[in-house]
Amino acid sequence: MTAQPYELFYWPGIQGRGEFIRLPLEDAGAAYVDVARQPEEQGGGVKAMFRWMSGEQKVDGPQPFGPPFLKAGDLVIAQTANILQFLAPRLGLVGESEGERLHAHQLQLTIADFVVEIHGTHHPIAVSLYYDDQKPESKRYTGHFVGERMPKFLGYFEKVLEKNGGEHMVGRAVSTVDLSMFQIIAGLEYAFPRALGALAERIPGLMALRDRVAARPRLAAYLASPRRLPFNEHGLFRRYPELDEA
Amino acid sequence: MTAQPYELFYWPGIQGRGEFIRLPLEDAGAAYVDVARQPEEQGGGVKAMFRWMSGEQKVDGPQPFGPPFLKAGDLVIAQTANILQFLAPRLGLVGESEGERLHAHQLQLTIADFVVEIHGTHHPIAVSLYYDDQKPESKRYTGHFVGERMPKFLGYFEKVLEKNGGEHMVGRAVSTVDLSMFQIIAGLEYAFPRALGALAERIPGLMALRDRVAARPRLAAYLASPRRLPFNEHGLFRRYPELDEA
Repeated sequence: MTAQPYELFYWPGIQGRGEFIRLPLEDAGAAYVDVARQPEEQGGGVKAMFRWMSGEQKVDGPQPFGPPFLKAGDLVIAQTANILQFLAPRLGLVGESEGERLHAHQLQLTIADFVVEIHGTHHPIAVSLYYDDQKPESKRYTGHFVGERMPKFLGYFEKVLEKNGGEHMVGRAVSTVDLSMFQIIAGLEYAFPRALGALAERIPGLMALRDRVAARPRLAAYLASPRRLPFNEHGLFRRYPELDEA
Repeated sequence: MTAQPYELFYWPGIQGRGEFIRLPLEDAGAAYVDVARQPEEQGGGVKAMFRWMSGEQKVDGPQPFGPPFLKAGDLVIAQTANILQFLAPRLGLVGESEGERLHAHQLQLTIADFVVEIHGTHHPIAVSLYYDDQKPESKRYTGHFVGERMPKFLGYFEKVLEKNGGEHMVGRAVSTVDLSMFQIIAGLEYAFPRALGALAERIPGLMALRDRVAARPRLAAYLASPRRLPFNEHGLFRRYPELDEA
């Protein structure tokens, strides 16, 4: 545990991958600063974030390839799943045993794989291009995503949850994996209301898990606060109705 | 350390993501069985692998979403970077400090992101389609990959290596990250000889690292053995000359 607040670095205008880190920090009531969302005069803004990525700001270890990254004391670490693995025991959001931690991280990395595929629905060709410049490919990609990949990933997670007793994704208590699973379902509901609606009755466990996580007191307060950015068409989960057709 | 040999489960005909696990096992001279490459009569073959993924074979914890996965005693864990994080300290392929381990894993996950983008060069639309069924999209994707993403990732890794003294990607000794970096360079040289050739003089540190790793006695013996599968057009790194054009 660090005495100073954690410093989270992420794009200020979107939930994106940063949201997977914000959720456990908020759920645990941890002290943290969302640096790029602070005013520049107070050392915030995206400029502050870029100083760490460019190497201008000295880091003990490799500089981050990209956001999100976290500063905890003198330690600067990047990669969403790596940050979650670091934070989980400090925030009381994973069990004690090595096996459980390995399995939590395994699920977190499978969620990360799913996130990459979700991102592909609007950026199948290149991150440097706008969605409008890769629309035909997005349409073709998303047909396979909605028809094959989304049911495969969600079906897998449903089975994992069910096998673990139906309350939690891993272990006997709430973990970062449950919070990430909430975010996945919430995001898919925003981006693909039709497709998720069609799947919902096949994943009753995940839908109920989503509701239980959203009702946790600190998270409910966070979700109702201005700190929870709205979903939008610059983030990971984007609502493009033409991609959510049958 | 487990008394029984490790059991690695991966597709038998390709290097793919499994190779990132084989390399440290081979470098450390660890006892392991590459299960799907053993005869079915001896409990091998892809059928044995699928039994763990389908849930037919009971696992304590979540079943793997896909290969590679590793059985170490009673523990079954999946996700390439998770397996490497588990194996590295047991094989003497990472330092002792928490910071170094977090940074090694951070780099491993950045390599995993790069691997996903490499896979996209031949499968930009769907894993369920053949390359031949997504050729125009592959060409467009790979133009951005070769022109933007490959220089960006390799330039980043070169800078990390240089900042760490030029000998190792992280810490003061050889780690799983160095072995993975070897595999990335070797694979890109197979798949994109022209594009990698054009970049080589901007990444002298990575090219020299590749040579040093390949010359490690146990790895040199492995690379010359039939256990090292050849690169081919079913794996991660595929040589399609039409994608390696200027």
